[in-house]
Amino acid sequence: MRTVVWHDGAVRLIDQKRIPWELAHVDLTTYAAVAAAITDMTVRGAPAIGATAAFGLALAARQSQAETLADLLADLRTAAETLKAARPTAVNLAWAVERLMAVATSGEVNQPDALRSLLLSEAQRIADDDVFTNQRMGQFGAALINEGDTVLHHCNTGALATVDYGTALGVIRTAHEQGKRFHVLLDETRPRLQGSRLSAWELEQHGISYDILPDTAAGYYMQNGEIKLVLVGADRIAANGDTANKIGTYQIAVLAHENNIPFYTVAPTSTVDLALATGADIPIEERDPAEVRAPYGNPIVPDHYRARNPAFDVTPHRYLSGIVTEQGIIRPPFGPALRQAVEAAEAN
Amino acid sequence: MRTVVWHDGAVRLIDQKRIPWELAHVDLTTYAAVAAAITDMTVRGAPAIGATAAFGLALAARQSQAETLADLLADLRTAAETLKAARPTAVNLAWAVERLMAVATSGEVNQPDALRSLLLSEAQRIADDDVFTNQRMGQFGAALINEGDTVLHHCNTGALATVDYGTALGVIRTAHEQGKRFHVLLDETRPRLQGSRLSAWELEQHGISYDILPDTAAGYYMQNGEIKLVLVGADRIAANGDTANKIGTYQIAVLAHENNIPFYTVAPTSTVDLALATGADIPIEERDPAEVRAPYGNPIVPDHYRARNPAFDVTPHRYLSGIVTEQGIIRPPFGPALRQAVEAAEAN
Repeated sequence: MRTVVWHDGAVRLIDQKRIPWELAHVDLTTYAAVAAAITDMTVRGAPAIGATAAFGLALAARQSQAETLADLLADLRTAAETLKAARPTAVNLAWAVERLMAVATSGEVNQPDALRSLLLSEAQRIADDDVFTNQRMGQFGAALINEGDTVLHHCNTGALATVDYGTALGVIRTAHEQGKRFHVLLDETRPRLQGSRLSAWELEQHGISYDILPDTAAGYYMQNGEIKLVLVGADRIAANGDTANKIGTYQIAVLAHENNIPFYTVAPTSTVDLALATGADIPIEERDPAEVRAPYGNPIVPDHYRARNPAFDVTPHRYLSGIVTEQGIIRPPFGPALRQAVEAAEAN
Repeated sequence: MRTVVWHDGAVRLIDQKRIPWELAHVDLTTYAAVAAAITDMTVRGAPAIGATAAFGLALAARQSQAETLADLLADLRTAAETLKAARPTAVNLAWAVERLMAVATSGEVNQPDALRSLLLSEAQRIADDDVFTNQRMGQFGAALINEGDTVLHHCNTGALATVDYGTALGVIRTAHEQGKRFHVLLDETRPRLQGSRLSAWELEQHGISYDILPDTAAGYYMQNGEIKLVLVGADRIAANGDTANKIGTYQIAVLAHENNIPFYTVAPTSTVDLALATGADIPIEERDPAEVRAPYGNPIVPDHYRARNPAFDVTPHRYLSGIVTEQGIIRPPFGPALRQAVEAAEAN
């Protein structure tokens, strides 16, 4: 079951706000609704929002009443800006939208309806490629997990964060399918609790051994020797390997380094942003402090209490043991190898 | 308003489970109820549970029907064991109980009723001393806070965690009373959220500038240079300075060290356990995973999901810039200076 599919002229998403309590779908029939679903995190996860935005742009092409290619392109440009602005940190969103816009402006077709079909095919290809890419990363990354290991994981990087299969959790899933026995510790990942709500739900489905941890306890289980490996995803990787990911990732990377525990990022090359030299240039989204004060509507403190809610942080590349991509595992120094991997992916 | 007082033959506690929604009290009339209130965290915070247990033992003396000193001492020994077993990590609990038992067995009085009075006086003295001790630590520690600083704080170490005034939050309160302007970032401190529920409530009362953070964000604000100082409390300090405190403290200490930010523990000498050479010997309480799955009755995940819930961790002394005690600020090497401070306190 895919996180995002094209269904009967609509973008169909799993509503991630209702997991683990209910597996429900929403069908979105306007690109504005797609952008809103990305902003409010009905769908989240860098690869998943990339594919969702691609389908959103294909939907915009269908919504447009334009009868000329020029008018359709004008409508698409408006939609593309709205979709790219839905969330700022993950580059996959812009990457997918720009890939469709490159197709739209390539001159490959000269009729509006032909372009509408072409964009839908391209969005579908992005979605299909994502699943294949994740399975490739799973194969490369599974070698990092040894029999009997305890692996720490942050946020959600599974089927729900992608079109299907997952990045870091995809590696965990592949190792499980290979018959390895190991245990996973899931940071609950405040404030939105993607670790407990989404990752635990996924590992329950697969029968993979896990425990949820408060985010305060990750260091404890590194210090006492239980954690042998850390696997996380990424929302944007700068050209030098500095990596933006869910808030809390930086802390875990520092702690892993301090405790000599291998720390790997698992992300497709579509997450690499060669236009940014270092992580200092990655925009960090600040979300509504209500997510801290009242998670999922359950108030911890009164509404007027003050809180801050940065959604991502940047891990300097020096803390990374490696980056698992669909082109293989990249090790330090990251710069030249990352560029090579992106070019190899684009050549495919 | 004190966290724990003797009131009309009962131990009266602020019910900390109802803060910030309601300031309510419970009156406990048996030592078993006092032990239960410590275990279920109606009262928490190392100094607060020390004073509570002392009043609990004074209550046990009043409950006892013993007509001879020997019979009363036997009843007290039973009560002392129950009270000391209520929670394992904070040494203040055992310290307070043993201080009362030393009085009970000193031979100072030879009538049961005289001993009952004496124990109540001694419990009252522990409570009064705690307030004075905290104010002394506040004076010493306030010098660490500079005008314009942002100070990171973990868990709750305020009036609620002590009899009154607080340890690390007492330092913050003193600096505020001195007219310094600064900002406090409060780790929410999952799973029980003492930072958001209790510390934010206290800082609201005092009008001290603060923001609540998810525990995942502390490193982010160290990395970006906002945090200039870290102040935390302690539940037990080993002879070499290794310090047990609320789960998550170790992580913060490592991150502060990595970012060259001063990290200070604020704790009275009653928190020092010279009987333990290092932190490796400090028992770490594991609490019910339901606290992780469903904080204050609001479920994040279904009941059968697996979770772990260690309540404390140990910060190796090498990460501490200093320990603020009522005898002054102790700096590395901690061993001899800690012993000297404990001896000076006992000589008073």
